[in-house]
Amino acid sequence: MKIQRAFSIKGAGKYLPKTVITSSKIESELNLPEGYIFKRIGVKSRHSAKEESNTFMAKQALNNALKDANISIKDIDCLIGASATFDYIIPNRSSLIKNAFEEALDLDFPCIDINTVCTSFISALDYASLLLSSGDYQHIAIVSSESSSNGLNPNDSETYSLFGDGAAAVIISRTNQKSGLIQYKSKTYSEAAKYTIIEGGGNMNHTKNTPYDPAMYSFKMQGKKLLKNVKTTLPKFLSQFFKPLTVSLQDVNLIVPHQASKLGIRMLIGLNKNNSANIVDQLENHGNCIAASIPIALVSSIENKTLKEGDTCFLLGTAAGMTIGGLLFKYSKL
Amino acid sequence: MKIQRAFSIKGAGKYLPKTVITSSKIESELNLPEGYIFKRIGVKSRHSAKEESNTFMAKQALNNALKDANISIKDIDCLIGASATFDYIIPNRSSLIKNAFEEALDLDFPCIDINTVCTSFISALDYASLLLSSGDYQHIAIVSSESSSNGLNPNDSETYSLFGDGAAAVIISRTNQKSGLIQYKSKTYSEAAKYTIIEGGGNMNHTKNTPYDPAMYSFKMQGKKLLKNVKTTLPKFLSQFFKPLTVSLQDVNLIVPHQASKLGIRMLIGLNKNNSANIVDQLENHGNCIAASIPIALVSSIENKTLKEGDTCFLLGTAAGMTIGGLLFKYSKL
Repeated sequence: MKIQRAFSIKGAGKYLPKTVITSSKIESELNLPEGYIFKRIGVKSRHSAKEESNTFMAKQALNNALKDANISIKDIDCLIGASATFDYIIPNRSSLIKNAFEEALDLDFPCIDINTVCTSFISALDYASLLLSSGDYQHIAIVSSESSSNGLNPNDSETYSLFGDGAAAVIISRTNQKSGLIQYKSKTYSEAAKYTIIEGGGNMNHTKNTPYDPAMYSFKMQGKKLLKNVKTTLPKFLSQFFKPLTVSLQDVNLIVPHQASKLGIRMLIGLNKNNSANIVDQLENHGNCIAASIPIALVSSIENKTLKEGDTCFLLGTAAGMTIGGLLFKYSKL
Repeated sequence: MKIQRAFSIKGAGKYLPKTVITSSKIESELNLPEGYIFKRIGVKSRHSAKEESNTFMAKQALNNALKDANISIKDIDCLIGASATFDYIIPNRSSLIKNAFEEALDLDFPCIDINTVCTSFISALDYASLLLSSGDYQHIAIVSSESSSNGLNPNDSETYSLFGDGAAAVIISRTNQKSGLIQYKSKTYSEAAKYTIIEGGGNMNHTKNTPYDPAMYSFKMQGKKLLKNVKTTLPKFLSQFFKPLTVSLQDVNLIVPHQASKLGIRMLIGLNKNNSANIVDQLENHGNCIAASIPIALVSSIENKTLKEGDTCFLLGTAAGMTIGGLLFKYSKL
């Protein structure tokens, strides 16, 4: 297995909002039978950012990652924000995260946002590996922080009961280890571009002309159409991804999928039926945390040692757009 | 001059909205004396996207760039969206642009957004050069498309009369020429993070809880504080940028600055006083087109042959965050 671009994950941290909302509570609210949401959507509880902003969660997660790496914000050379939701339209997410660190006010490292919606972390990790390979950086922070609750429509039980909030951060560092990126691919299948959308709030339906209503300002998903599309595109994507490699999906030590939905994760388990034990599934207690799903699952796997030094790890996700992103890397903390 | 990462600009195109709004018209609307806006802000007229969406303008600009490069959308390996404004919150801008090309519906090249607000094009160009250097791409499209009018407050004459709309696209290609990136730097100065902001529309003041009012949902700028900050940071930035190089700012053939404001461009002319003729200034007829300002000015310079084969070109901008971005490259179309 050839390492294309070396990196280590020197630090990993996450933050989960204090408020936990059980599916029973949502079932009462929506007059659904007890157990309906877990059975249908696969979620028992999720964290909800009732008190926390995106920036606050991001700061906590990054602080935890810095502690884990045993470095300080002063050692960071670049901060990449990799999320779909945001506190403000302007400035970008990453600048607000840096601004939340008082000790960073006189540091001048750059802040940049990357957005491929739910696969933003995968795109950001490839980008970070490219930046490291340019030789100008030592430590790059990637932070995903998502707060979905404002953008959910209580009249749409499928999405209302699926999403959760949270943040995760990693420190990607230059290394002498034989670890890092083996393969990255991102593909956008435009036929499905508008199967997942928030219609209001941009220039198309600006708040100026379009007052708030939950249907207009919430995440809308044509679940069946989307799943049909993914059923065709995902196997093709995976075959193209692994074809040039000497490893197959079955050989990968740990698969960290986007926690998109019960059916989404099941589809992946189907594709990897010889080795379903190595797929991280946190949907039950986290819900779909948009772009934070993959890094939260990755950070958890590092924390609980499911992902070990020298292991191969495959990040895989689908995203609004519709994009499928995959990144295979060899893990090292050193 | 060492080329760090080779690229050519195989194609360049722009789109300017049909509607032109003169400053006289705004002066009547706001009861300002005739000539006040040009004298104070430096803008005589600007294009306004009354009929055009961000995605529509982006498609026109990209079509023009593809024609100029004599290639088709089928030859594109990656599309980078580099804008601050957007039609929809989800999906990302670049996926919507690809979706607007009917002939691209069955193509699977990836779409990714980069956001450093007004310097997004600079960040995207560095990113594209990194992607090209990885060897997996031949042609990368970068598209900036901005529509500011929904986000302007008529009660704030300084910003209301400053901004304009438009789009520009370039095709960045692998090349055998000795052209491409000489130096790139982006630095974020967090002290000024909130001097430029749109307060409403994100999670901090969500439309759900905060009905539309122009002060809340429009771009707000603490111009004096910002300018004071830039006066300190810009000279330092430029000195650090050129220090390791064998060329100085005065040697550069063409400087394409972000058309931030009259004072912003003047400050730059002051810094480059030995050679002010080589600074592109389109503020008068375009206004500040956010992230599209730099590529519109770049594309114009290529079209009118102010930028010629083999010339060095320095892109420089300030952005909300507050970020200063600079990219020096040697131009080739081949």
